[in-house]
Amino acid sequence: MSTSENELNALGEFGLIHHLTRELQSDPDLIQGVGDDCAVLGIGEEQWLVSTDAVVEGVHFDRDFATMYDIGWKSAAAAVSDIAAMGGIPRFVLVSMAIPRNAPLEEMEQLYRGISDLVKQMQAVIVGGDTTRSPDRIFIDFTVIGVNGPGRCLLRSGSRPGDVIAVTGYPGDSAAGLLALQKNVDAPELRQAHLHPSPRCAEGQWLSLQQGVHAMIDLSDGLLQDCDHLAQAARLHFHLESNVLPVSPYLQQYADALEVDPLLLVLSGGEAYELIFTMSPGRVTRIQQEFEARFNLPCSLIGKVSRSEKVGVQVNGDYPEQHGFDHFRS
Amino acid sequence: MSTSENELNALGEFGLIHHLTRELQSDPDLIQGVGDDCAVLGIGEEQWLVSTDAVVEGVHFDRDFATMYDIGWKSAAAAVSDIAAMGGIPRFVLVSMAIPRNAPLEEMEQLYRGISDLVKQMQAVIVGGDTTRSPDRIFIDFTVIGVNGPGRCLLRSGSRPGDVIAVTGYPGDSAAGLLALQKNVDAPELRQAHLHPSPRCAEGQWLSLQQGVHAMIDLSDGLLQDCDHLAQAARLHFHLESNVLPVSPYLQQYADALEVDPLLLVLSGGEAYELIFTMSPGRVTRIQQEFEARFNLPCSLIGKVSRSEKVGVQVNGDYPEQHGFDHFRS
Repeated sequence: MSTSENELNALGEFGLIHHLTRELQSDPDLIQGVGDDCAVLGIGEEQWLVSTDAVVEGVHFDRDFATMYDIGWKSAAAAVSDIAAMGGIPRFVLVSMAIPRNAPLEEMEQLYRGISDLVKQMQAVIVGGDTTRSPDRIFIDFTVIGVNGPGRCLLRSGSRPGDVIAVTGYPGDSAAGLLALQKNVDAPELRQAHLHPSPRCAEGQWLSLQQGVHAMIDLSDGLLQDCDHLAQAARLHFHLESNVLPVSPYLQQYADALEVDPLLLVLSGGEAYELIFTMSPGRVTRIQQEFEARFNLPCSLIGKVSRSEKVGVQVNGDYPEQHGFDHFRS
Repeated sequence: MSTSENELNALGEFGLIHHLTRELQSDPDLIQGVGDDCAVLGIGEEQWLVSTDAVVEGVHFDRDFATMYDIGWKSAAAAVSDIAAMGGIPRFVLVSMAIPRNAPLEEMEQLYRGISDLVKQMQAVIVGGDTTRSPDRIFIDFTVIGVNGPGRCLLRSGSRPGDVIAVTGYPGDSAAGLLALQKNVDAPELRQAHLHPSPRCAEGQWLSLQQGVHAMIDLSDGLLQDCDHLAQAARLHFHLESNVLPVSPYLQQYADALEVDPLLLVLSGGEAYELIFTMSPGRVTRIQQEFEARFNLPCSLIGKVSRSEKVGVQVNGDYPEQHGFDHFRS
């Protein structure tokens, strides 16, 4: 193999995961292993959902644009969101941190308070972790353990031809908030969306109870990329229509100041922690109406699933060039 | 608070953990939270043990003295050892890795193979994790989930006055192996002890079944420091006798070449992943004999537990200066 072929850039984040885990053993108690938002373990009568999520200073967060409290909250939200993505109930969180020896204690307290406030809001508890030294930058890895919710576990792979694709909330607002911070644009609602996202646990649990909802994922890498994960898992074609994508009034309002095309952010902006799901066309009206009334949150119908030789995502019939965020490619 | 008081150095690793976690909430299903080797969760009929363990390149491992395979094996062994320390059965492992973009794929494969071979040997399975980018050094965090073994969960806090303190295997060999690698001394048995430790899962499970065994911990920071964890958890005094500490024939043989006092390594050398436990004096003979016969591994009686105003560890009646490894102090 040549050096260039050897490089992680070529494989990308998801290719690398696939490559490293291709020979893993199975286990009778392992219901869902690598490849979904959480591992699903069946122990006794219970189903457990377990997920880990790592963040690295300088890659996932930057102290220039967020307080340590914000960083703690946001990172923990990303981790808990993986449980929401399956309709599960987060219960226990473990926090592993590697921190520089000269880090001010007060900053570490703020970081930990951001984490524990998010965990508390999600009605979960921190039960352990590890704390060790890093020579320079902060690393945090979260382990979130949940139980399956009132409904069934919603996997990535369940979409069916004919399904309607839906997304909760406003997928572009978090990325717009980061831009606002970087460009020093005073857009408090967007900044809030970026710094203090709220994982959609209650929404995910409710969706997992609804007949006709077939597959779900949380929006972490970007709408296009996460739709692609759903499409690949089901080996189906996802068709999105750009004119029905949800653009928030705030994103609309600040788009000029941010010098950005709102639709680009909606399609490719990450870290939104909304839910993307697919459902039977016959159930759409009732689910959408009840969802919006119950959660006071938009539920937008953004496209359709079909059988096609072209597995993946198209927007208005085209393959978009940039899908979203891949840690080794972007 | 002055700047110097603010620093993590002053608190140390364990002080920092205590400080950050002092206000954590409890939960009716949380049997044991922060402060032991694992969190113990009671869900339905089952007890689950969960632990995380983070390693950072340049702090916990160094590519100069180990292959990527060795690093994978050793790091995973450290993580699984926390389950052994409570007498549990490791079942599921999640691996979160942050790795530099230019890391050769072959090295990452070796690292992952070292991890998965250790996990396989422990009869557990890898079920998930996270893979992301690091700007420079490798960061790995393991989550190990186990169930309680055939016996009861052995906590750190269970020691009683009058108990005899025992340790399995040869605590100094791993540290001696690292010295051999650093000093280029050809001591294959010691190198092996450092690079390919085997967590004492079967031994821990057997001990958890024995009446009269009261407390247990795995030896990761060093005999003195880990005995101190047991002493502090039980608020008792641990007295060790240096003339009965187990020095392996290999450590004896290579001590001159390594230019080291074997007893210093036995007392302060970390990463041995042996078990330290305390037991009723009346059970000692039977447990020691059966253990050694069953596992072909020494079980050395190294001291006694007593009630005293001086909570902590003494060796031959003195407080040793250096306890072991603390990530923020050493």
